[in-house]
Amino acid sequence: MSRTIAILGGTGPEGSGLAYRLVRAGETVILGSRDAVRAQEAAQRISAKAGLNVPIRGAENSQAAAEADIAILTVPFPGHAALLKQLKPYWKPGTILIDTTVPLAVSIGGAATQTLGVWAGSAAEQAAQLVPAGVPVAAAFQNLGASKLMSDDPVDCDVVVCSNDDRARQVACELAEKIPGVRALNGGKLENARIVEQVTALLITLNMRYKATGAGVRFTGLPIPKPRT
Amino acid sequence: MSRTIAILGGTGPEGSGLAYRLVRAGETVILGSRDAVRAQEAAQRISAKAGLNVPIRGAENSQAAAEADIAILTVPFPGHAALLKQLKPYWKPGTILIDTTVPLAVSIGGAATQTLGVWAGSAAEQAAQLVPAGVPVAAAFQNLGASKLMSDDPVDCDVVVCSNDDRARQVACELAEKIPGVRALNGGKLENARIVEQVTALLITLNMRYKATGAGVRFTGLPIPKPRT
Repeated sequence: MSRTIAILGGTGPEGSGLAYRLVRAGETVILGSRDAVRAQEAAQRISAKAGLNVPIRGAENSQAAAEADIAILTVPFPGHAALLKQLKPYWKPGTILIDTTVPLAVSIGGAATQTLGVWAGSAAEQAAQLVPAGVPVAAAFQNLGASKLMSDDPVDCDVVVCSNDDRARQVACELAEKIPGVRALNGGKLENARIVEQVTALLITLNMRYKATGAGVRFTGLPIPKPRT
Repeated sequence: MSRTIAILGGTGPEGSGLAYRLVRAGETVILGSRDAVRAQEAAQRISAKAGLNVPIRGAENSQAAAEADIAILTVPFPGHAALLKQLKPYWKPGTILIDTTVPLAVSIGGAATQTLGVWAGSAAEQAAQLVPAGVPVAAAFQNLGASKLMSDDPVDCDVVVCSNDDRARQVACELAEKIPGVRALNGGKLENARIVEQVTALLITLNMRYKATGAGVRFTGLPIPKPRT
């Protein structure tokens, strides 16, 4: 079954990296941006890197959202609520929204290792409050550093998927495992995204303390095999 | 150099498990409890399990704290602030306090997978507010499940140590790595304990979702080897 994945705010490093991995895995991607021309240019760069004729194009965010069967939100936190409010009239019923956003304090000029308090509890729960009924939300991909995505190397990281909707959880897990090395884990309810989002700030601390760029996380002691990396 | 480690609230599973691992590693431990008799009984059980004549004994918490060079706090969160207030007159200057506490909502009748908001930011930061000047605090061990401690098996888990005091951080790292399999990581400032504490709630979710008992966490992408497990 053909499906279209919109990556909203997709011209940034995280969105472009996810787009790259997904087109490499054979998915059809629309890169969304405030600026359709920038989106098209970024899509062309990803297409060139991934090989000619991969199914990716660029569009303004609301057009990308309107065409999406699955939308992945990769905007910096300060633009999160505003974009979701803008998109509200455009969603097709049943579109699945996967939120990757982390409310990092650095996004509003604070410290790289700190997060902002979000009234809803997490960026993902804020997203769930700002989409129409019938658009289920999953939180995923927050702990995958952008630096590891724009290559073909396996990623030594788990993706914890939190959702109150079984189909959204399943789709997010399936997409995550299209990235070599990634293991998707069922992180329970959407509210648990509060913790997964925070882990990203801890990964930034570890990167800084150990002069690394690609800290990730694996969970141990679970009866499911870890992929090879 | 001989040193004494007090494990306060040490008759519970986490405290007893840490005590077991530390006496196995040759450390001298005083198990602290509200009730000196219970503390002595628990110390005897650990001594019997670890082999005769291991250096562990029991005492009332304030006596244990008074004798400690290092104190490890393993009380359930509802007793955290009260115990620290009680202990305030007893600390020797320079005693290092290592806080393992996680403010789990289940400790006051809430959900197993949720945490309580702590005004100070985290249990560890609350501890730092409740000790005298000259007693540095490190946060550590929160993600090591008790079920994995009361054995000699290697533990497949990192211990993230957060502290504003270099000596406290160093001592906590050193003690953590006395547990086979554990890798200690520098998690930066004490305030980052906010995140490490939350991770415990996520591990509980993963245990529940995957019918496991010993979920742990490893960080990847760092230039330091992981121990064998």
